[in-house]
Amino acid sequence: MALIVQKFGGTSVGSTDKIKAVARRVLDCQQQGNQMVVVLSAMSGETDRLIGLANEIQKIPSLREMDMLLSTGEQVTIALFAMAVKEMGGDAVSLLGDQVRIQTDTMHTKARIKHIDTDRIKKHLDEGRVVTIAGFQGVTDDGDITTLGRGGSDTTAVALAAALKADACEIFTDVDGVFTTDPNICRNARKIDRISYDEMLELASLGAKVLDIRSVGLAKRYGVPLHVRSTFTDNEGTWVVEEEKIMESMLVSGVTYNKNEARITINNVPDQPGVAAKIFLPISDAGIIVDMIIQNTGTRANTTDMTFTVLRNDYERAMKLLKEISSEIGAESVTGDEDIAKVSIVGVGMRNHSGIASTMFQIMAKENINIHMISTSEIKVSCIIDEKYTELAVRALHDAFALDKEPVHEKLPEPDTTQHG
Amino acid sequence: MALIVQKFGGTSVGSTDKIKAVARRVLDCQQQGNQMVVVLSAMSGETDRLIGLANEIQKIPSLREMDMLLSTGEQVTIALFAMAVKEMGGDAVSLLGDQVRIQTDTMHTKARIKHIDTDRIKKHLDEGRVVTIAGFQGVTDDGDITTLGRGGSDTTAVALAAALKADACEIFTDVDGVFTTDPNICRNARKIDRISYDEMLELASLGAKVLDIRSVGLAKRYGVPLHVRSTFTDNEGTWVVEEEKIMESMLVSGVTYNKNEARITINNVPDQPGVAAKIFLPISDAGIIVDMIIQNTGTRANTTDMTFTVLRNDYERAMKLLKEISSEIGAESVTGDEDIAKVSIVGVGMRNHSGIASTMFQIMAKENINIHMISTSEIKVSCIIDEKYTELAVRALHDAFALDKEPVHEKLPEPDTTQHG
Repeated sequence: MALIVQKFGGTSVGSTDKIKAVARRVLDCQQQGNQMVVVLSAMSGETDRLIGLANEIQKIPSLREMDMLLSTGEQVTIALFAMAVKEMGGDAVSLLGDQVRIQTDTMHTKARIKHIDTDRIKKHLDEGRVVTIAGFQGVTDDGDITTLGRGGSDTTAVALAAALKADACEIFTDVDGVFTTDPNICRNARKIDRISYDEMLELASLGAKVLDIRSVGLAKRYGVPLHVRSTFTDNEGTWVVEEEKIMESMLVSGVTYNKNEARITINNVPDQPGVAAKIFLPISDAGIIVDMIIQNTGTRANTTDMTFTVLRNDYERAMKLLKEISSEIGAESVTGDEDIAKVSIVGVGMRNHSGIASTMFQIMAKENINIHMISTSEIKVSCIIDEKYTELAVRALHDAFALDKEPVHEKLPEPDTTQHG
Repeated sequence: MALIVQKFGGTSVGSTDKIKAVARRVLDCQQQGNQMVVVLSAMSGETDRLIGLANEIQKIPSLREMDMLLSTGEQVTIALFAMAVKEMGGDAVSLLGDQVRIQTDTMHTKARIKHIDTDRIKKHLDEGRVVTIAGFQGVTDDGDITTLGRGGSDTTAVALAAALKADACEIFTDVDGVFTTDPNICRNARKIDRISYDEMLELASLGAKVLDIRSVGLAKRYGVPLHVRSTFTDNEGTWVVEEEKIMESMLVSGVTYNKNEARITINNVPDQPGVAAKIFLPISDAGIIVDMIIQNTGTRANTTDMTFTVLRNDYERAMKLLKEISSEIGAESVTGDEDIAKVSIVGVGMRNHSGIASTMFQIMAKENINIHMISTSEIKVSCIIDEKYTELAVRALHDAFALDKEPVHEKLPEPDTTQHG
């Protein structure tokens, strides 16, 4: 008997009919002999509705009260889901974050889980119930409701799977799994059967939206087998597992892109110790997140050019701030460009094979795509290019690294946990 | 410094603008030197929306899950209200039933309060916060959410006022207070300044909807001064207090009516011991509530006529059941009438004055209104009449007992608790 944690997002539970369909699916899985824990998000649109109400009242809503407000969304869904399971003849119980209890720190709207009690869940599971738990929420030592921030329900599911030592954590979504690249751009994008935690972390941080990065990190830390799959089919999705459990010959696992950044350059900064801190400290104080940073020699003697990327939303604010900083530190000018994109290749195979990065640069050159910035890690290479070349670059890289072809790998025995699929 | 519990119903908090107006009002009251506890209902329409969702899923919703679902309505309101207070420069904290904690039995959807902890509330009050508490909800010993049934938020407010030994419990509503009769029927209906708990209990049970009967009973038991007043004006409303605190010369305090009943007669029932039980046991087993019961001699020897009233909603079900019972016990026939109304006069003055009932019957006779059934208690007289005479009867009684005139009473010192009004 396996213990499975399944998480369904807002679009999967966006109506009472959809909630019934999810209940049917969960019951089928239970009837195949599995113990079922189901983590649900708020019905799609509900969180936005609640945020809208709060914004009508407070320009900057109180964080504690925001958590009190938003946590109702998931509470509604789990109650309706438990009703649906019972209506179909099954038994179910809904539990809130504080009923489980999912203990967090006191950082309202972006709390972190400190501890999860599993006694109450296990008792209900042993009595044959489907246990449905509100995603996204926890409780402080003082009994205040907290929420876990964006992607919080994924985190809830993985944290529960870790605490319960579940055989698998399945994240249901509106796509079939993790793809070698965006199928909207590249027709022959292929669903990946297995991917390592590290690759998934890179893909998530580079813009793949299918899994929240925090939950992938948590899954890696506790060795929770993650299964990303579609709510609307019974097909196997993508398993995110330990690297040792994948024996593929692929050098590159996926190509990803992100159009959500903008590039800023401070030109001819006097090259003195401490100048980087003078630039980046006020920026981080303003809550602006910086991604890539590159420092080049400037066009004048003893100067340097400092180039970096910020989220496009923060671009105007960052430009304004940097113009002030620029005159303070005696730099020549600040220039920026919103029409850029980051294209990346990710693969654990890179660790053992040199030359992947230069192959990427060659492919881009062949397509006459100019590279503005480069950033590498052990298992990824990212290039900043003009936004208009994004699709072209993605398709060229996908083809050149033959990502549409099934990887050649020794057939491993299927993990026990797939028996319920 | 007085401690005031204020309760606002769904229409008073039906939009973010209305929530802001309530917050302004509460803050004004706090700034006059009072400690404020505010009990709120769900925004109007929200509870119906949630019930609608549940009904789409389960024909007979699971009670525990229904409470899990419905309790979110009040949670949304208290979060938004606390935000509104803070936006206006005040300090506020919202608390759920389980955070307070409001301990109940396990009777989901109609739970009863067993105990209220006041420590957490008092701590926040001492720190200058407006404490806003979700009405209608509590928590079992096991931490399951319960709701208190219809009028539950009134009950929450009164129970909190009792536990906190508050100086007053103010129930805000969309009318100016308790009236001598329905102003829609009788233009010169007068707002009552003070009324006793017992009279209010009778009025509430006879169909006056301004206060939930359970909360009035609770207020009486713990001697909580209740103030029913309008959300939309600053006028004093109606104080519901101990009888000793009212020294009025009124014999009758109010006239009320109820068009929600139907009358059923079983004719010529063989008059044997146990026959009443044979009739009323199956009816109560079917969950049908019987109000007035009258037994008369039947038209044949050794028979009796049994007449009683049920809620109009239950009329058809009751008729069907009684036709079966009737043939079993050898009664002649079952007849019924849906077009009836109950008109009642209420007043503690009746205790010490005989002849009030016969005055009532004279007034009805003068208007040529036939009385079908009569029921009396120590402080009320109710008559069942044809529904079409309801308004006529109400106006005639209101005029005859001079209810439009201010009662002559010795001026008592105002209670301390009105200082904030």
